[in-house]
Amino acid sequence: MSAEKKIPYKIYLQEEEMPTSWYNMRADMKNKPAPLLNPGTLQPLKFEELQPIFCDDLIAQELNDTDAYIEIPEAIREYYKTYRPSPVVRAYNLEKKLQTPAKIYYKFEGNNTSGSHKLNSAIAQAYYAKKQGLKGVTTETGAGQWGTALSMACAYFDLDCKVYMVKVSYEQKPFRREVMRTYGASVTPSPSDTTTVGKKILAEHPGTTGSLGCAISEAVEVATSNEGYRYVLGSVLNQVLLHQSVIGLETKTALDKYGIQPDIIIGCAGGGSNLGGLIAPFMGEKLRGEKDYRIIAVEPASCPSFTRGKFAYDFCDTGMICPLAKMYTLGSGFIPAPNHAGGLRFHGMSSILSQLYHDGLMEAVAVEQTAVFQAAEQFARTEGILPAPESSHAIRVAIDEALKCKETGEEKNIVFGLTGTGYFDLVAYQQYNDHVMTDYIPTDEDLQAGFAGIPRFPGNE
Amino acid sequence: MSAEKKIPYKIYLQEEEMPTSWYNMRADMKNKPAPLLNPGTLQPLKFEELQPIFCDDLIAQELNDTDAYIEIPEAIREYYKTYRPSPVVRAYNLEKKLQTPAKIYYKFEGNNTSGSHKLNSAIAQAYYAKKQGLKGVTTETGAGQWGTALSMACAYFDLDCKVYMVKVSYEQKPFRREVMRTYGASVTPSPSDTTTVGKKILAEHPGTTGSLGCAISEAVEVATSNEGYRYVLGSVLNQVLLHQSVIGLETKTALDKYGIQPDIIIGCAGGGSNLGGLIAPFMGEKLRGEKDYRIIAVEPASCPSFTRGKFAYDFCDTGMICPLAKMYTLGSGFIPAPNHAGGLRFHGMSSILSQLYHDGLMEAVAVEQTAVFQAAEQFARTEGILPAPESSHAIRVAIDEALKCKETGEEKNIVFGLTGTGYFDLVAYQQYNDHVMTDYIPTDEDLQAGFAGIPRFPGNE
Repeated sequence: MSAEKKIPYKIYLQEEEMPTSWYNMRADMKNKPAPLLNPGTLQPLKFEELQPIFCDDLIAQELNDTDAYIEIPEAIREYYKTYRPSPVVRAYNLEKKLQTPAKIYYKFEGNNTSGSHKLNSAIAQAYYAKKQGLKGVTTETGAGQWGTALSMACAYFDLDCKVYMVKVSYEQKPFRREVMRTYGASVTPSPSDTTTVGKKILAEHPGTTGSLGCAISEAVEVATSNEGYRYVLGSVLNQVLLHQSVIGLETKTALDKYGIQPDIIIGCAGGGSNLGGLIAPFMGEKLRGEKDYRIIAVEPASCPSFTRGKFAYDFCDTGMICPLAKMYTLGSGFIPAPNHAGGLRFHGMSSILSQLYHDGLMEAVAVEQTAVFQAAEQFARTEGILPAPESSHAIRVAIDEALKCKETGEEKNIVFGLTGTGYFDLVAYQQYNDHVMTDYIPTDEDLQAGFAGIPRFPGNE
Repeated sequence: MSAEKKIPYKIYLQEEEMPTSWYNMRADMKNKPAPLLNPGTLQPLKFEELQPIFCDDLIAQELNDTDAYIEIPEAIREYYKTYRPSPVVRAYNLEKKLQTPAKIYYKFEGNNTSGSHKLNSAIAQAYYAKKQGLKGVTTETGAGQWGTALSMACAYFDLDCKVYMVKVSYEQKPFRREVMRTYGASVTPSPSDTTTVGKKILAEHPGTTGSLGCAISEAVEVATSNEGYRYVLGSVLNQVLLHQSVIGLETKTALDKYGIQPDIIIGCAGGGSNLGGLIAPFMGEKLRGEKDYRIIAVEPASCPSFTRGKFAYDFCDTGMICPLAKMYTLGSGFIPAPNHAGGLRFHGMSSILSQLYHDGLMEAVAVEQTAVFQAAEQFARTEGILPAPESSHAIRVAIDEALKCKETGEEKNIVFGLTGTGYFDLVAYQQYNDHVMTDYIPTDEDLQAGFAGIPRFPGNE
């Protein structure tokens, strides 16, 4: 045996090594994720029922649970080349600091102006909207990560982009708003007087600072009531996980080049798009019985959909206007405590990941906020990159697993997804630096209150 | 002739192709940059006189104008591998938008948490401080770009880092402050009561919001009055240009791999560290008579050191406590108008670049602020990256040169330095988006007032 090929700090693929198709995990799942239901009829939603809301090609992808590979259109591949491939980084400095025999790798998706992996799906959704000859798209955004990605994608394809931004974020977090405006998006604080639903809410609650549920309602209303517009969404949906499979496909190619077999794959989970994308090809091997991996979803203890939620049909939005999805859920009325920083605040979870978790194909861990920021600080100081709070959930568990290896002496290969950077999350870092950040774990009573909002009908436990 | 090698969107070097030595332009200059003078004696500063302020190895580099190559210590090369090589990007989408036959390339230094090229010198300066057995370093920072880079470098080498941050930035721009704190730096608003000079200023001007000159004075006082500390600086100095040559060396290697010969090389110029680094190996060829390139420094019309300054010995700081440097200067009392966004606000310029410009080896252009942000917006929408205001000066001139090629039909190769990202400059972007950004060009009277502060002694015109 010759010496192992030296692994560089960063493994970059060549352009020609980038994936040409997305991988659709559903094709290899024995138990398919349950279909979306029409909340009125409780019947699976048909293509035609989704057409007023979504682009045709995206509906087809949403409903497709049979084709394992779906070609990435040439125009999207070209755009991917402008900010991808993203590197797989060997965390040499973190390993050294931890004094662990484990080998730690992370796929870093934050080196683009959207600051996260969201751009991978935004550009795909904008492409299909353009292909359909639409004028523009609408969406909602909280802190603005998804809205930023979508505004970049729309600038590239010369599409109008209307973003409804939760009013409190619009006012208190003006920076991502200005990035979106620089890319030509119109950003409207929600609730607004530009929609019927917005006007109604404003009349009833004149001083409201808005909510994501309300912003969704406004974005959907604008999409369905304006000729040439559709609504787009940045996580949870099957189509989004499909687009995000580019993360996992690149990761696998990069690791294969150096003969690296992951033992553990770790990702943070909010709606599930990053995790679903990262694990896709590895889960495919697992589903086909070719290989085995430990796969760990990490969620905040303050919003523990997997670890303490119910597997049931529920609304995806707090406004209860969206279709019903079968998923691990805390109830659509569940809102994380106000001390919760960053994203990962969704009450539910991707249907695909929910089914995989239900079938025992992956694990889930909930971690507390201050422990997450401790990991973020340690990572920043050793690896250089200031991580997003969301990504830092995965860092926490990667460090914990590496420390277990230190005890056992095992040289495991740990791979995690570093979804983004924390440059727009410095209010949370300041709280941590000032030692005023706190943890919050919902009580069983809190959870029961959320579960009470899950719709009851035969078969929905 | 076979088909040209296809040029990818991004050219990344392999680790083993990264430079192992910095290149020192001074060795190849016939007219060496003038030495720093002791303001009391007007004699060239000696090694011993600089020892209380700077680390020994850095003083040696500062004074070395004979060795063309200086080896990059192994520990620095290892750190460089964590965030370098930075890509040379082919601006295919910008070219298409401009419909120019020119080929545009940019070296992108913004993909690290400091957000700019500053880290290249920060890590070197921290290394030499550690090597000398020091406890820590002190510095000043305005908006925080340099302070952030230094805090990252000090975290890596486990050095104490004391940053004096201009009070108005400390209070109004808290985000970079929090990044520095996350990396373990102590950040003190200046003027402060931690120094004699700070106390004096506070007593005289209780409500002052501080200035860079005052922050320098505090940082130097702390370095010289505390055992085991030295002062470090992020631009202007010869040593900093030396470290930044890594930018140009990587750029040249990447272009050479694809047989690309630049016709024009463009960089923004504040203190000159980015520009000096980018052009280093190209200027070397020019100095040795091997090749010729057009080299263009771009500065703000509101702070036009090259295009409207005097070539004379002047103080580097507004407090007039630092050595005298021979450079293009607007006078150490010159302060850009308050509407000036971003960096590039230094009244002087690197002595090396000043000499090269004086000898006709490079050109300089001054551009106005709104035209710079127009270029920034166009770049962001086509190339994806939201550029720093500083970098956008270079983008402006690169676009202008590409548009000239459109008129003439010339297929020139234009290379520019994209020094950083604008994620912490969104107040300026907001002004631009809201159409309230203005231009300002100092009058001749404004300049005369600045020139009046340049010290007069024989030989200093």
